[in-house]
Amino acid sequence: MQNFIFHNPTRYIFGEGQIQLLSQEISKIGKKVFLVYGSGSIKKNGVYEQVLAQLTGFEVKEFSGVEPNPRLETLAKALPLIREFAPDIILAVGGGSVIDGAKFLAVAAYFDGEDLWEIVKTHGEAVTGKVIPLGVVLTMSATASEFNGGSVITRWATHEKDYFETEETRPRFSLVDPQAQYSLPEEQIIYGIIDPFSHVLEQYITQTTDFEVQDRLAEALLLSLIDQGPKVLRNKQDYSARANLAFAASLALNNLIGSGVTQDWATHSLEHVVSGFYDIPHAAGLAIITPHWMQVVGLTQKFEKMVRYGRNVWGLTGTDEVVAAGAITKTSEFFSSLGAKMTLTAWNIPHESLEQLVSAAVKYGNIGENALSEVQIRDIYTRCY
Amino acid sequence: MQNFIFHNPTRYIFGEGQIQLLSQEISKIGKKVFLVYGSGSIKKNGVYEQVLAQLTGFEVKEFSGVEPNPRLETLAKALPLIREFAPDIILAVGGGSVIDGAKFLAVAAYFDGEDLWEIVKTHGEAVTGKVIPLGVVLTMSATASEFNGGSVITRWATHEKDYFETEETRPRFSLVDPQAQYSLPEEQIIYGIIDPFSHVLEQYITQTTDFEVQDRLAEALLLSLIDQGPKVLRNKQDYSARANLAFAASLALNNLIGSGVTQDWATHSLEHVVSGFYDIPHAAGLAIITPHWMQVVGLTQKFEKMVRYGRNVWGLTGTDEVVAAGAITKTSEFFSSLGAKMTLTAWNIPHESLEQLVSAAVKYGNIGENALSEVQIRDIYTRCY
Repeated sequence: MQNFIFHNPTRYIFGEGQIQLLSQEISKIGKKVFLVYGSGSIKKNGVYEQVLAQLTGFEVKEFSGVEPNPRLETLAKALPLIREFAPDIILAVGGGSVIDGAKFLAVAAYFDGEDLWEIVKTHGEAVTGKVIPLGVVLTMSATASEFNGGSVITRWATHEKDYFETEETRPRFSLVDPQAQYSLPEEQIIYGIIDPFSHVLEQYITQTTDFEVQDRLAEALLLSLIDQGPKVLRNKQDYSARANLAFAASLALNNLIGSGVTQDWATHSLEHVVSGFYDIPHAAGLAIITPHWMQVVGLTQKFEKMVRYGRNVWGLTGTDEVVAAGAITKTSEFFSSLGAKMTLTAWNIPHESLEQLVSAAVKYGNIGENALSEVQIRDIYTRCY
Repeated sequence: MQNFIFHNPTRYIFGEGQIQLLSQEISKIGKKVFLVYGSGSIKKNGVYEQVLAQLTGFEVKEFSGVEPNPRLETLAKALPLIREFAPDIILAVGGGSVIDGAKFLAVAAYFDGEDLWEIVKTHGEAVTGKVIPLGVVLTMSATASEFNGGSVITRWATHEKDYFETEETRPRFSLVDPQAQYSLPEEQIIYGIIDPFSHVLEQYITQTTDFEVQDRLAEALLLSLIDQGPKVLRNKQDYSARANLAFAASLALNNLIGSGVTQDWATHSLEHVVSGFYDIPHAAGLAIITPHWMQVVGLTQKFEKMVRYGRNVWGLTGTDEVVAAGAITKTSEFFSSLGAKMTLTAWNIPHESLEQLVSAAVKYGNIGENALSEVQIRDIYTRCY
């Protein structure tokens, strides 16, 4: 096990009706609230009204229209407004994209570099100076952005998608009411299962095998997602299943299971390339790429962990070879059973895009625990059509 | 799942040589350090020297002699020294007892009530006013006191043992170097496995069944303890096993697996009664009481969870009745295989103590998830001799 520091001071406030604690939480930070949200679904599901009711007595400015796969170009429009308003807190009301966007605003508002993309390109190292405190009201569990300091941003102009992470962009508080997710469209529920599943795999399917606690915790989250995810799809108002799914998603990427662990993240990088060009939902890309990554990389370079995954998560028995191969089939069948499309072709991404993706991924550089070769990258993408 | 707030801001600093970060962590808090430790084992294993080297340039006052099952009477002696010294931070260097003692000092120093026992009797509710910040260098993993705000204190004069908990007594930082535990005597390793195992059971063997994530996480920790504990006993310098055991112990009681969960804690209460009179090691008492509590309470009132425990943790198969009963045997065999004594008699506690224990436990009041009856209490204790 490698040395690590686990320090996650976010107040994670969970459960039915917890949005009523919003006013109290904001009061601890300040009076001027810059409210950020997406395309307006919060106006349909009642969350916007609940939030506004809590903001009585605060000075509020709104910025909406943060899109899925949030874009630098969109977010840049908010910066003059923020600088003029000088908020005490940025309040993100939405899912992972809105929170990621709000994190970018929190560091970009007072960024004194020349080029905002530096923040992302350096994975946050370029961030200096004041960061505006962040609060979250979560409306879709998936990315765990409500429980970590990371953010994924797309620069549409150059079709680049990358992440940054800082300690200062951890939300001061996150309010997670599973009921606020009852009205999510089916597609987003599906991605809300696959995205955290992939987050766990990125921290679990590695070459190292002396992280017994972290591996067991990872398996616990995978088993929870396999068990609870389909229950939510069957009954969208099953509070218990919703709550378990939401909690599992938050824990899938809050630094706990990744503490002291060698991680991979190749699947995410390969997906960022795809959605950087084609703007498909992030988890839709993950569902397609994951089984092929397991075939090309898992079976060869992380065989021992693939066997463990097959036995402990999918309950497979037999020889190591049978179990490892079976684990890929099980993973693929699971994503498919949830309703995910399993090829790029199904998303109307033409086979002619192959070399475009390969060369963008090669340019991305050092993908995964052991830096994928161009041959491996081409092999994985080829299988995805 | 019940509503909950998970907020654990302790900086948990883990790994080989991490004590070298001590000076840096203290500097964030202040200059005057009140150093608390136990019977002096830290002077034999090199930890004291490492700590002192880090305290160069700070103003330091020491208080030693905090015993296992720390006593109000002992701790009270430190209070005039603390008030005179007015430290910026209390630094606990030791295991759970030293940390628990330091937590008591942190709240007792400026406690303005009449009777210090009020702090414990009210489980912390009586705490008002200034609490001195706390830092930890851990030398024995077991209680998870390094990762929570709780503390167990004994008032020897009346043979009462109880806990208090506050947000302010969460350590600001905890340094956990598994190597600092290489020299622990075998007995303490054994207790360092049983204590966290019991902590998990208290949060897991309950009547409620809709905490899939928390239950899976609890199972992950139990499986880790079963796998890694014996490895540490076989090779005391197995870094990987030590690290996993230490991390599992910290996570067993840092509020995570207990988030939103109905909990039990009857075994702990029944044990506090025993060690309140006979001063045996806390985990020694837990090892004895746990299987009998499972027999009397688990099989009747928490049957469904006992079955789950048998299947998911011990891999048992068969009818529910066979699995639940088998899980008790497995638990008992596990503790015994580690080297724990399995009867009170083996600790020279005479059978005549039975009614003394029963009446003290009854006086304790409302023990466990469903308030044990006097009949149940007597039944459990009777089986312990």
